[in-house]
Amino acid sequence: MTTVSDLTESELIGRIKTHLPPPPGWLIVGIGDDAAVVEPERNRLEVLSVDALVEGVHFDRRFTPPGAIGHRALAVNLSDLAAMGAAPRLALLSFALPGDLSCGDFDAIVAGLTALSAHHRMHVVGGNLARSTGPLMIDVTVVGSVKPRQALTRSGARPGDELYVTGSIGAAAAGLQMLKDGFATKDTTDTKEHLSTEKTSSTSVSLVSSVVKDCMNRYLYPEPRVRLGLLLARNRAASACVDLSDGLADGVWRVAEASGVGAAIDGAALPIDPTTRGWFDSRGADPILESVTGGDDYELVFTARPRLRGRLKAATRHGGAPLTRIGVCTENPAVVLRRTIGEAVVDSPMPRGYSHFR
Amino acid sequence: MTTVSDLTESELIGRIKTHLPPPPGWLIVGIGDDAAVVEPERNRLEVLSVDALVEGVHFDRRFTPPGAIGHRALAVNLSDLAAMGAAPRLALLSFALPGDLSCGDFDAIVAGLTALSAHHRMHVVGGNLARSTGPLMIDVTVVGSVKPRQALTRSGARPGDELYVTGSIGAAAAGLQMLKDGFATKDTTDTKEHLSTEKTSSTSVSLVSSVVKDCMNRYLYPEPRVRLGLLLARNRAASACVDLSDGLADGVWRVAEASGVGAAIDGAALPIDPTTRGWFDSRGADPILESVTGGDDYELVFTARPRLRGRLKAATRHGGAPLTRIGVCTENPAVVLRRTIGEAVVDSPMPRGYSHFR
Repeated sequence: MTTVSDLTESELIGRIKTHLPPPPGWLIVGIGDDAAVVEPERNRLEVLSVDALVEGVHFDRRFTPPGAIGHRALAVNLSDLAAMGAAPRLALLSFALPGDLSCGDFDAIVAGLTALSAHHRMHVVGGNLARSTGPLMIDVTVVGSVKPRQALTRSGARPGDELYVTGSIGAAAAGLQMLKDGFATKDTTDTKEHLSTEKTSSTSVSLVSSVVKDCMNRYLYPEPRVRLGLLLARNRAASACVDLSDGLADGVWRVAEASGVGAAIDGAALPIDPTTRGWFDSRGADPILESVTGGDDYELVFTARPRLRGRLKAATRHGGAPLTRIGVCTENPAVVLRRTIGEAVVDSPMPRGYSHFR
Repeated sequence: MTTVSDLTESELIGRIKTHLPPPPGWLIVGIGDDAAVVEPERNRLEVLSVDALVEGVHFDRRFTPPGAIGHRALAVNLSDLAAMGAAPRLALLSFALPGDLSCGDFDAIVAGLTALSAHHRMHVVGGNLARSTGPLMIDVTVVGSVKPRQALTRSGARPGDELYVTGSIGAAAAGLQMLKDGFATKDTTDTKEHLSTEKTSSTSVSLVSSVVKDCMNRYLYPEPRVRLGLLLARNRAASACVDLSDGLADGVWRVAEASGVGAAIDGAALPIDPTTRGWFDSRGADPILESVTGGDDYELVFTARPRLRGRLKAATRHGGAPLTRIGVCTENPAVVLRRTIGEAVVDSPMPRGYSHFR
């Protein structure tokens, strides 16, 4: 098996280049010099973000196919741009590669990443290849653009604003758990076999169903809400916005803290797919709690003034994902999850995400 | 000892913020949202680069003080901007931190990095903090600006152009070897003591001299040639330029290959400090070969048309480092090192850098 350490750096760069479309006119100097040179977009602000995927922390190579690793490495960054209402423009890739990574896996990671970048018509303009003495790490920097005064921030929510979430939540957390369970029941020496999604979904006949595949794919191939974020920004429809990398509870807390408001979330309104709900139920877990604390959804949570609800029309029609009203911002700075248990309405504090850097 | 895993992510971000100056007017949204939002500079092209430092590959934490790790992480990127003739503007920091990293070391890394960014009047606008299951990694993305048609590339050299190098070469490679030697003679359990430069230079009385300190500091705290690169670009003085992260031999090869020329380098003209030369001599090593293949110099190599030599005046006077003419570009695509041995002039192929990704 050929590994990345059998190749030179320029051979690896050459392999990346084969996945890239022809460079756009605004790219003056591309891959291969000390830095990239680009023409900025006129009359636009620039939106910059960097996010890393670290093996053993953000993904497990034993059950995450290399194409999904590449896809996710870019998706988490696109999700940040989506949360700002920005149009993606370019990316810089920084890989730290273990020497024993096969060239096939390297190519598949790059293919997964560049397929997503092409889908969003953004261009990889440069990057860096380093060797890692430990885990595989993929650091992606993205730059997007937004019209002046249209950038969505976390801090614009006011008491009375309504809270919305895009798509559905919880499926990615369920999918990750399914992948872990599937892997745990396999012989761990059989990891290579495990690297393709098809194989993963055939580990247990009883589990093989489109439901399982759907949840796993929600974890493996998240679809950042780029179009929806753009429509929210263009129509000035949202007063605050955040993406759900660490789960809905964490996202609502972040908007509340940045905006100086509280929030009351209606547990019954949360968009949790019936199949996701059923799967958590079957394990004796609370579907609502699992879905608000589970990460990896890469949906958006945003707030909107009730009287400007009409501005949501474009996002509703053309955003590519349903919008669900899940609660309201409050003057009281508490963030509560409201649930109906029997005939009683119970407000409990919304759980926080991971508190320590572990 | 408090480690980074005792703190929350927002506490760590708070510690970074204490090192940053007030945000500039062009920074619309800074640290703390999903992404940074900046106003681009008018009538300028943007220059973007990313570079990573990986523990065990690019530095050894046992003898590199944390302040030097932070300094170097930004310096390698500034050197890329310098090689393009760009003015530094902003940086994004992406850290992958081992959980057992002490908060003191974390602060010192950040302080080393932000001292250098402040020196170059650039702003840290965002970043990412991740946990590492292995080595410490620091990935820095920088954005600079350059006037249209003034960006320096590697590909503009023509046969007959003269080759120049800034500052001096070899001292950083010597300094790294001194640090390694000093560490090897120490009890390896005593690594903490070793983390301050002062201690490092007192490991052996016979070695304690300003020479040793100078070489070590050249490795630990390289000074990227930002001002010099800017002056070359503004005066259109260079036809091609590259920075010497992997040594002079590698840099000359890169310019030659990108420009489609060869080069003849005069070994006797190379700017190697007498003390560096003497140190290599004392070890029975060839000072010229060690200095052209040794990395970490972060000097610039550039080419200039002989008839436009007058344009070098500003860089010579105000660039902050001497310029030395070291050879000439040739039609013949070979890159040769010319040395006088006894009375004979001997041309040998210029060594190449590391060929494999190891």
